[in-house]
Amino acid sequence: MGQLDTLFAPERVAVVGATESEGSVGRAVMENLLDGYEGDVVAVNPSSETVFGLDCHDSIADVGGVDLAIVVVPPQIVNGVLEEAGEAGVRDVAVITAGFGEAGSEGAARERDMKAIAEDHDLNLVGPNCLGVLSTRRNMNATFSPKSAIEGNISFMSQSGAFITAVLDWASDHNVGFNDVVSLGNKAVLDEGDFIDYWGEDPETDVILGYLEDIENGRDFIDTAREVTKDTPIVAVKSGRTEAGASAAASHTGAIAGSERAYEAGLEQAGVLRATSVQELFDYATILEDQPMPENDQIAIVTNAGGPGVMSTDAIGDSGLEMATLTDETLEALEADMPDGANIYNPVDVLGDAPSERYEQALDVVLQDPNVGSVVVVACPTAVLSFEKLAETVTDKFEEYGVPMAASLMGGDSAQQANEILGEAGIPSYFDPARGVNGLDALREYAEIREHEYAEPRDFDVDRERAREILERTKERDTNKLGVEAMELLEAYGIPTPQGAIVSDKNAAVEAAKDIPGNVVMKIVSPDILHKSDIGGVEVSVPDDEVASTYDDLIARARNYQPDATILGVQVQEMADLDAGTETIVGINRDPQFGPLVMFGLGGIFVEVLEDATFRVAPVSEPEAEEMIDEIDSAPLLRGARGREPVDEAGVVETIQRISKLVTDFPAILELDINPLVATPDGVVAVDIRATVDQEEL
Amino acid sequence: MGQLDTLFAPERVAVVGATESEGSVGRAVMENLLDGYEGDVVAVNPSSETVFGLDCHDSIADVGGVDLAIVVVPPQIVNGVLEEAGEAGVRDVAVITAGFGEAGSEGAARERDMKAIAEDHDLNLVGPNCLGVLSTRRNMNATFSPKSAIEGNISFMSQSGAFITAVLDWASDHNVGFNDVVSLGNKAVLDEGDFIDYWGEDPETDVILGYLEDIENGRDFIDTAREVTKDTPIVAVKSGRTEAGASAAASHTGAIAGSERAYEAGLEQAGVLRATSVQELFDYATILEDQPMPENDQIAIVTNAGGPGVMSTDAIGDSGLEMATLTDETLEALEADMPDGANIYNPVDVLGDAPSERYEQALDVVLQDPNVGSVVVVACPTAVLSFEKLAETVTDKFEEYGVPMAASLMGGDSAQQANEILGEAGIPSYFDPARGVNGLDALREYAEIREHEYAEPRDFDVDRERAREILERTKERDTNKLGVEAMELLEAYGIPTPQGAIVSDKNAAVEAAKDIPGNVVMKIVSPDILHKSDIGGVEVSVPDDEVASTYDDLIARARNYQPDATILGVQVQEMADLDAGTETIVGINRDPQFGPLVMFGLGGIFVEVLEDATFRVAPVSEPEAEEMIDEIDSAPLLRGARGREPVDEAGVVETIQRISKLVTDFPAILELDINPLVATPDGVVAVDIRATVDQEEL
Repeated sequence: MGQLDTLFAPERVAVVGATESEGSVGRAVMENLLDGYEGDVVAVNPSSETVFGLDCHDSIADVGGVDLAIVVVPPQIVNGVLEEAGEAGVRDVAVITAGFGEAGSEGAARERDMKAIAEDHDLNLVGPNCLGVLSTRRNMNATFSPKSAIEGNISFMSQSGAFITAVLDWASDHNVGFNDVVSLGNKAVLDEGDFIDYWGEDPETDVILGYLEDIENGRDFIDTAREVTKDTPIVAVKSGRTEAGASAAASHTGAIAGSERAYEAGLEQAGVLRATSVQELFDYATILEDQPMPENDQIAIVTNAGGPGVMSTDAIGDSGLEMATLTDETLEALEADMPDGANIYNPVDVLGDAPSERYEQALDVVLQDPNVGSVVVVACPTAVLSFEKLAETVTDKFEEYGVPMAASLMGGDSAQQANEILGEAGIPSYFDPARGVNGLDALREYAEIREHEYAEPRDFDVDRERAREILERTKERDTNKLGVEAMELLEAYGIPTPQGAIVSDKNAAVEAAKDIPGNVVMKIVSPDILHKSDIGGVEVSVPDDEVASTYDDLIARARNYQPDATILGVQVQEMADLDAGTETIVGINRDPQFGPLVMFGLGGIFVEVLEDATFRVAPVSEPEAEEMIDEIDSAPLLRGARGREPVDEAGVVETIQRISKLVTDFPAILELDINPLVATPDGVVAVDIRATVDQEEL
Repeated sequence: MGQLDTLFAPERVAVVGATESEGSVGRAVMENLLDGYEGDVVAVNPSSETVFGLDCHDSIADVGGVDLAIVVVPPQIVNGVLEEAGEAGVRDVAVITAGFGEAGSEGAARERDMKAIAEDHDLNLVGPNCLGVLSTRRNMNATFSPKSAIEGNISFMSQSGAFITAVLDWASDHNVGFNDVVSLGNKAVLDEGDFIDYWGEDPETDVILGYLEDIENGRDFIDTAREVTKDTPIVAVKSGRTEAGASAAASHTGAIAGSERAYEAGLEQAGVLRATSVQELFDYATILEDQPMPENDQIAIVTNAGGPGVMSTDAIGDSGLEMATLTDETLEALEADMPDGANIYNPVDVLGDAPSERYEQALDVVLQDPNVGSVVVVACPTAVLSFEKLAETVTDKFEEYGVPMAASLMGGDSAQQANEILGEAGIPSYFDPARGVNGLDALREYAEIREHEYAEPRDFDVDRERAREILERTKERDTNKLGVEAMELLEAYGIPTPQGAIVSDKNAAVEAAKDIPGNVVMKIVSPDILHKSDIGGVEVSVPDDEVASTYDDLIARARNYQPDATILGVQVQEMADLDAGTETIVGINRDPQFGPLVMFGLGGIFVEVLEDATFRVAPVSEPEAEEMIDEIDSAPLLRGARGREPVDEAGVVETIQRISKLVTDFPAILELDINPLVATPDGVVAVDIRATVDQEEL
């Protein structure tokens, strides 16, 4: 692609609003650019003759060959500048100025105009309301952050400008370097998806880091990120994680599927490693930047003390890593090399009297063990161990064997120089062994993401036209709710429903019941009556000779309960064999960022009381639907726990996919619940449905 | 108490095994003691004339007035030295020498002798197999750690000596000071409970810190810790927390640690704050050492940037703290003081152009808000903010208002001096705001522990003699298992059981059935047949006229299934109304460290499939039994979820306590399960029981 090359590595940068005025943003940006940027800086400001010795231009239109314009003029005149820049052939712009979407209706209008101008002139526009852009490619700090960055291969985007200033201040002192840094601001034009896309193709970027407060176009983000993470890890803090979802949707799905559920599902489906704190964000970034992929999930500990070995093992127990089982060859070699009393099993304890040479012997053996995917080296200070020599040994072995490693040199200042040696080699080293283990666990997780094969959603032969007709029927009504009358919608999408019919007179009810073997279930059908059972609107196990009288009873009860209700008739339905089956729920609601979110769980108490449910952004592929079943705690109940016969899991998996297709095909469906979808050993059947549609979307 | 005063602050210390020999432990201890200890050092070693210029004594018996003896002689002669020391009137001893319980059967025998000698001479003995003892009271480093400690009010015990060397190395460089430090070693005599007891009374100790791999005498530990935590917080890392960690710990110490479930329950019942990593251990210790208790659980954030404010809010969402709702007065005052655009709601955003004076204005208001229990101050670097001035402001306000505070100055070296100012005032400050929030959350948790009222276990009027008789019956059998025949055990302890009887002939069965209204349940009674239903050994809903034939059938099936089984007869029982009730399980098993551990959960899938169970170390008080119900996820099912009628929760709570009393009264009961205990709106009934007894304990 390279589409943003000139944004991050421009040959000529113009600062529109350049000034020497003390304390101004325009001054800070000029100072930063003039401090080492390997390219031309052009100052634009009609009210100045010169800025920092540079001739000032009246307008960007007067300057030729500008790759990147940094705009710091007052908000009222930003759009005029953008027009001029676009006409002058500038393609890359960062608007630092605030006073747009974040600033009331006037600002929002300005931002709309900005988008239109950007589209007209094909502008790659960063911001507005941002800190600017920084890149070490040409040593350019086009931000108003007082600190710049040292070189590295992490590219970082942030929805908080202040957080960038904090990170830059901290990073240089901790030897963390960056390639590109961008402050996303209001994301009027370029958003996280654009930068992921670009950095995914960029050979200078080894890790993509994000601080995100929201994600635009969730589904596109997922699709882009999936491609990118095959080669380049993406680590993100998504803030606002714990805020209770604001959605007050009526259905069960809505009730527990706040938007954090969507982010959680969406970021996982996107293959994004999620950090929950700033510390994790950079711990993950630095290990991913420098280390190879582990060959497997097993990890070995080499330590000179038992206690810290156990602490490290606990950290491994908390992670997705497993304690490596050393091969017999490894054990024999350790037995031969290590002194009496050393523990040759994992954690390998080289004992408190070990100098770095003994660590070296142990590492030479352990790092060649095919069962060992990564190693953490733990050391307490002793009279005979030099931390610096140990750091050099670990560095050598890391380079020799290419096995991921972390260290924990458990000291204060005495470990500092050794930690620097390790840090330069890309080996994280912290006092607390749990932190290094946590980093290696992120590496494992990324290795898994990298290997992950994403399946395309299955295509099913469905009757889309029929489904549309059923949805459009709601237009003739006062309500946007659908009830059992929408069972046909499921039929149109190939989801099994009980045999039955909706009838609107007594005789038709009797006829319908005749076609159904055994007794029937009869339910009132009215979009205005959602809780049918509560008003006596459902009768089960009705024998054929009571169908006519039951019909009259149901209609009478409904009229009595709500005289003005629209009554569409009565559903006469086959009895589902609930005893032989397990009730499940498949539902969807629509997230503002990610679109349709599919929920799966077990019916009855499981979703409602135990909140045992799982979510995916649609469309859901077959492996994803299978994973959904794996993820719920109550899955064993579908799989033969306590002597039950296992249910038709494939039927559940297929229903999830068909619902996913239905709601992807019809954005008008805002919410939909199949509750219950009864799963039996012989198949599944959708017994009841509720849905809400957006009639304007039809 | 002061019983260990002379251990930590002796006036005269003798080193038995003192030497100048290079690389020896005896030399290291001598060097450390001679480096600043404010007391007399005496060297004991029959093979030397002088050590470091001190006259060497042949035996400790030759020296008078020794408060503390440090023993570093070879293991074979340690016990001899202890005898001499005891006879010479020494009361406090630390045995550094290894080669005892951890070293095979010979070592174990040596350790047994050591215990006997210690008992004879009333020795306060630390170790063996330890690093020694250190205290800043008299600036004494009687360990072989190369680093000593700076003064402070944390007292620290560790089951890993190496971890002490690591912590001492790290702590001085991080301005963390200690009062006493002790390496527990094999805990032949003094264990964690003794030190907790002592430090709990010690005015110099503000926080007790522990690294523990196991706990001796779990129940005593709970009772001691509960008393101590009223005044002095106890923070512990219990390693071997995870399955992987537990097996590593077992091979390290040889200790059979109890189950993690027992430790989890026990440490919580003891009021110990549990840290899961080294970082947490010291983050908690430092904040607890220096800060006052929060008045409430609400926390306010004052920040100069929105993004980091949101991150801090997320950290609060992960914690037990709540975002403070500021009072109207606070909001009005902030509205008046803060510039336009500032967010006056929590998180309070003083904006990016805020100098420390604006923070001061905001803090003056927020810290006086009665809804604010603690405050975290967050700052990103800006051109107008001096971190040092902010640190001074925060320090002043902390001292002025006495409200717990943490800070996050988000910078690198630029924040270092400010962090030192804060650190000296006892205000933790980390780059990652989540860490400070986590510390304040520990403070909140300790405030809760401090306020906690521990109830005495209720005493019940029970028939202990009858219970003993039933248990003793097992002595006549080949098995130590009890089945339904032990329902009487429950009756003896006042736990409701269905009406019924165990009969050993057909006619008695018919008579028994007559006394019971309605149909009956009949079950084979045999200690050899545990899975009665599987062999057709249970018949439900038997009408009176089929009781005789059913009796014969049950006996025949049992004989057929297992010809040599001891058959005690048939139980004729009232039908429990399972439909109206919810099946629960109350069980106990016995943990090697903590003794009887009581479990509670719902029957059926809940414990077995969903693992939804909770545990307490017995004896269980009434409030603890109530908490057990609160803790299970499925509790709403007992409380009227989904239209059920709430069950008799008080009955469940009482049953838990009665079982707790039963197993406390009879250590011979190794395991016992009431499954199910059916809970209905009108009461509870124990429908079945299984137990295992240790006949030798009876």
